[in-house]
Amino acid sequence: MIRPPRDPDFAQRVRATFARQAFMRLIGAELVTVAPGEVAIVLPIRAGLAQQHGYCHAGATWAIADTASGFAAQTLMGPEDGVLTVELKINLLAPARGERLIARGRVERAGRSLTVCRSDVVAVAGGVETPVALAVGTFMTMPGLDAAQP
Amino acid sequence: MIRPPRDPDFAQRVRATFARQAFMRLIGAELVTVAPGEVAIVLPIRAGLAQQHGYCHAGATWAIADTASGFAAQTLMGPEDGVLTVELKINLLAPARGERLIARGRVERAGRSLTVCRSDVVAVAGGVETPVALAVGTFMTMPGLDAAQP
Amino acid sequence: MIRPPRDPDFAQRVRATFARQAFMRLIGAELVTVAPGEVAIVLPIRAGLAQQHGYCHAGATWAIADTASGFAAQTLMGPEDGVLTVELKINLLAPARGERLIARGRVERAGRSLTVCRSDVVAVAGGVETPVALAVGTFMTMPGLDAAQP
Amino acid sequence: MIRPPRDPDFAQRVRATFARQAFMRLIGAELVTVAPGEVAIVLPIRAGLAQQHGYCHAGATWAIADTASGFAAQTLMGPEDGVLTVELKINLLAPARGERLIARGRVERAGRSLTVCRSDVVAVAGGVETPVALAVGTFMTMPGLDAAQP
Repeated sequence: MIRPPRDPDFAQRVRATFARQAFMRLIGAELVTVAPGEVAIVLPIRAGLAQQHGYCHAGATWAIADTASGFAAQTLMGPEDGVLTVELKINLLAPARGERLIARGRVERAGRSLTVCRSDVVAVAGGVETPVALAVGTFMTMPGLDAAQP
Repeated sequence: MIRPPRDPDFAQRVRATFARQAFMRLIGAELVTVAPGEVAIVLPIRAGLAQQHGYCHAGATWAIADTASGFAAQTLMGPEDGVLTVELKINLLAPARGERLIARGRVERAGRSLTVCRSDVVAVAGGVETPVALAVGTFMTMPGLDAAQP
Repeated sequence: MIRPPRDPDFAQRVRATFARQAFMRLIGAELVTVAPGEVAIVLPIRAGLAQQHGYCHAGATWAIADTASGFAAQTLMGPEDGVLTVELKINLLAPARGERLIARGRVERAGRSLTVCRSDVVAVAGGVETPVALAVGTFMTMPGLDAAQP
Repeated sequence: MIRPPRDPDFAQRVRATFARQAFMRLIGAELVTVAPGEVAIVLPIRAGLAQQHGYCHAGATWAIADTASGFAAQTLMGPEDGVLTVELKINLLAPARGERLIARGRVERAGRSLTVCRSDVVAVAGGVETPVALAVGTFMTMPGLDAAQP
């Protein structure tokens, strides 16, 4: 169900696009893995991300799940295609607490214009990963939206 | 479908809880309306919230939709009940650009332990509101979770 | 947000398409309203639709929510366009019991290729409507898919 | 993440509950696998299940995804607990056509009152499985709802 990347430079393109996401910088997320149909993002958990009970706000969890999935979709697109989130649902499985979150996005089905992806988000503490969220979303290929990008 | 608030001090309680959400402070969101079953949050759009095309990152949109809905649910809960997001899906309708976003959360159905809410998010520019997102989510009542909160 | 119908014969086209849905016949659903951006479907509740507690199975509720939304989207499409469900989430608000269900689908945002719709499903008993489900979904316009249909 | 079944007779209980779902009989679905945290349902594709293009209606796909997930959740519940669907989103990946559909439901996270499950639905034709849908939903444990059931 995963087609080979159309763009041999997909990893460099995804990393460059991630770098243009000011919001990812604001929350402190880092892109760690870029592979065909798979992207992983790490978010160190800090006080500035908290909700009222001290856990990482679900908005930060959703944001890295969305970006990991969207870029996973983009690894399979053409060099001038942009990616747009159509919709994404997240189920929260456990409080997001620990040292960091890891969002692993994976393409489930890449169609001509729509790609369905899944993101699993875990919290890491003391080397142990605990699932905290599961998200499934739909992403649209926008031909030419990313033309003339480095 | 909306029962009267159990807690006469619901507005003060919601405002105090919002103030404890460091993430809302990080992104720059403000709580503007608290009414029985309804909460509105404003998010001035600034460069630090952007994704790669310059629009407000969908994560910021989801975060205010989630918080507006969660607090709308909490307006109807008891004075010691906490609220927890179970799941929330967002459909993105248009790019989030303009001066600010407004997320209006509303209770659709308040059950004993679960509340279903809807959030409509608009972008405001030049006095004109444009719908940018629609979200529906489920929130759980956590008895006693917020006990001993000011 | 609702554009005028492109096809002056939209109502006749939607009714003809509904008539080709054998599954709607199987469960006993009827199309009652077709208006620009709005479609209503009625499902008499009978024993053959039940789940283990005697209520109408959520699958029947989802099916009429999906069809009501999909056809609401189709009212605004061109005369040869087909409609395809991309995704749809349903929140169940109360047990589906009573004389019949009514699913009211409405277009929230009609884009070039994707339309977002909402369906509200109520159960009717003794003239009183009780909300039983809320669904939001995404539908894709398939140009030419319904060409040469009567 | 999967706890051992609380009820040694879980398989018999799930099969008996499935047998009480008249809707599953109406559409022609059969329960084929019941294991801790996993349930599979088969739906032979026939003309009575069709939508306007001849494919299996998405309502039938959602119904078996919902039932497979709900019963997967129920395998881990106590002998008198009932299961209730809170919400379920389905992403449709490809047209549902072929000889039969198989919905495989699996528990992702079993909490005290809520269980999150995933269902993968495939279409089978000539021995080849093609993914047609991915669904993630939330199910509530209803203590005592199924008391005094055989």
